Amino acid sequence: MWLWSRPFCPTLRLCGWTALMHAARNGDHNLVRALLHRGCDRSPLNSSSQTAFDIAKFWGHTHIFSVSGPVSGPQSPHEMFFSAEPLDRLSIKRPDQDWIRTRQKDPRTVYLLFHKLSPMTQGGEESGPVGTQSNYIVFTTDDITTFYSPIICNTEVTFVQMCSDLDQEELLKRSKDKTCSFPKNPHRDLLRLSEEEAGLVAQSRSVLAWHARYSFCSTCGGRSRVEEAGHKRSCENTTCVSHQGVHNTCYPRVDPVVIMLVLHPDQNHCLLGRKKVFPPGMFSCLAGFIEPGECVEAAVRREVQEESGVLVDPVWYVCSQPWPMPSSLMIGCLTIAVTTEITVDQDEIEEAKWFSRQQVIDSLIGGSRAAFVVPPRQTIAHQLLRHWTGLTSNL
Amino acid sequence: MWLWSRPFCPTLRLCGWTALMHAARNGDHNLVRALLHRGCDRSPLNSSSQTAFDIAKFWGHTHIFSVSGPVSGPQSPHEMFFSAEPLDRLSIKRPDQDWIRTRQKDPRTVYLLFHKLSPMTQGGEESGPVGTQSNYIVFTTDDITTFYSPIICNTEVTFVQMCSDLDQEELLKRSKDKTCSFPKNPHRDLLRLSEEEAGLVAQSRSVLAWHARYSFCSTCGGRSRVEEAGHKRSCENTTCVSHQGVHNTCYPRVDPVVIMLVLHPDQNHCLLGRKKVFPPGMFSCLAGFIEPGECVEAAVRREVQEESGVLVDPVWYVCSQPWPMPSSLMIGCLTIAVTTEITVDQDEIEEAKWFSRQQVIDSLIGGSRAAFVVPPRQTIAHQLLRHWTGLTSNL
Ligand SMILES: [Zn+2]
Ligand SMILES: [Zn+2]
Repeated sequence: MWLWSRPFCPTLRLCGWTALMHAARNGDHNLVRALLHRGCDRSPLNSSSQTAFDIAKFWGHTHIFSVSGPVSGPQSPHEMFFSAEPLDRLSIKRPDQDWIRTRQKDPRTVYLLFHKLSPMTQGGEESGPVGTQSNYIVFTTDDITTFYSPIICNTEVTFVQMCSDLDQEELLKRSKDKTCSFPKNPHRDLLRLSEEEAGLVAQSRSVLAWHARYSFCSTCGGRSRVEEAGHKRSCENTTCVSHQGVHNTCYPRVDPVVIMLVLHPDQNHCLLGRKKVFPPGMFSCLAGFIEPGECVEAAVRREVQEESGVLVDPVWYVCSQPWPMPSSLMIGCLTIAVTTEITVDQDEIEEAKWFSRQQVIDSLIGGSRAAFVVPPRQTIAHQLLRHWTGLTSNL
Repeated sequence: MWLWSRPFCPTLRLCGWTALMHAARNGDHNLVRALLHRGCDRSPLNSSSQTAFDIAKFWGHTHIFSVSGPVSGPQSPHEMFFSAEPLDRLSIKRPDQDWIRTRQKDPRTVYLLFHKLSPMTQGGEESGPVGTQSNYIVFTTDDITTFYSPIICNTEVTFVQMCSDLDQEELLKRSKDKTCSFPKNPHRDLLRLSEEEAGLVAQSRSVLAWHARYSFCSTCGGRSRVEEAGHKRSCENTTCVSHQGVHNTCYPRVDPVVIMLVLHPDQNHCLLGRKKVFPPGMFSCLAGFIEPGECVEAAVRREVQEESGVLVDPVWYVCSQPWPMPSSLMIGCLTIAVTTEITVDQDEIEEAKWFSRQQVIDSLIGGSRAAFVVPPRQTIAHQLLRHWTGLTSNL
């Protein structure tokens, strides 16, 4: 139904070396280019704390990493968790009611079941290692039409948001698999999905959260109805001004957020902060919502100053990630501090500190030498840390 | 009241050479670094169609353009129109009612007057060359308290949205200056503002547009009230679930948009399209809204394919721009086509074509050799075109 091919080395967990590392060892220019072109992560470390580039350097093959193309900018560290696009969104088909009805009745169509923005998954809540399992439950048209009416249609897969008057027990009873459940803590449990599942859940959860919060017209207060396969809501009040022209009130909301790794002027330390709600010992990148009338670079400068008192400039974009809690677009950047004295905004963060590059590497590797707890690898904060340590690796 | 210093060469229009060109001619490494660091535009062409880099190359000074820092990514072409931040947003002060009331009464506070999302400006609608004039009208506390009640406060400047029961004639009559007016076509008239004015108007117009469209709670349909100096709206219905936790329904909306210059695989042509609403002969970059659950790079690939049928990969971020029509964040990218056959989505664009680099340069310079009309220099599309031609310049 969709491609399961992934640009990552399938043997990563077996030998501790990525495909890119193997290609780097062998000086295989074409393979390195192909892997980087497909978004292969260049930042992982092997057991000797070497990146693929370090390995190429050791074996005299640094030329194979020269980037072709119009710019020599940083490659995105790799595909981000929640950003996989296993299905064609086919937005052009959304206004086509006949096409949607046909697909909804098609026995090959499959459905994901959501309850309170959580997808029904197999196994207990705590089951399965993080990020490795294919564990949501797919329903067929036959299953679904018996009990539920779908509201959001996305080409091959239709998301079903449960009516709130059907309680969770009832839903679980009706499902085929007695071991299924609805994850209770999305910030933790959704990170257990496979990359492809996470991409699908990111899209569906964000859209469903929008329906949950935006079922009334914000312009006149009237009720609105679902259109375009769940990707639009129109005001039912025909005299409402929202019907004149095109307005964002009718479309799902996406909130852009800047998240940035602030480097010390010595470029051997970075600034990380911790919020009160973080697990013990965890530090992460600073972040905040972009405001109206603000560009990415200005938002980075403002947020770092507000949260830590540190002035930064310039700003480099690194990568982006959708974050479906409920519907953010994380825009990941690197930036360099101009000042180093920290004054924390206590409303935002509890503590902010400079960590050395070695402390970050030790913490990414984990174990007894870890100076702090890094955010999970599924987060863009983690990937920014890996990106920085991989980029300037000189071990 | 705010800094008017700008990182651009003040002599650009006098001698046809930018400050960066002079520094490049003289091989002045420190000046080049300082200019680039402050966001100086490296893409303008002199009368011989040379960029500053071309000039440095001609005089044997290419080394002065080597970029310092943790990555050698593309520098943003320069500060974008609408992205200037002449005022401190002081978001930390927004919940402080006493502070706001004090500032509102302070005789040093100034106000901008808006009517239907247009700022009151001096002179006739058509007056003044594009982007060069300081032409909005500032009101003092004394002026404003006589007639109007401000709803949005931003440190030194308060934006005032007029009640709709005061008509435009009445407003103009009450103003001190008889030559003032409210621009009728924001897409055209707001581009006449100076850089600093544009930054201020971008922020205020986006926030005011949000108030105009989101005066009801989208979660329960109840009325909402203005809080935090105009940067929050809370539902007046105390039993509404929007009061449980933090929800984006209470905060101004910013819509992220990708806009991309698609390069031909030969890297000597680019893909531009025109919409029916464009002025005659104008072609521009493709663009579209980022969807829920989508990262920047995936949105670029999807939008290009939907609008033109062309497949692209990889994607590089270049720069960003707030666009207050009403509240978009434009995320500008370069990308390379994998396929070249064009199939236009007629609902989106009327025509899409490959243009050669020379055609783009001729069109940016203007005059009789122009192959098409480029978008105004205040747009990120224009800056992406300049960025591309400047980057790979080999004239
Ligand atoms: Zn309405
Ligand atoms: Zn409400």
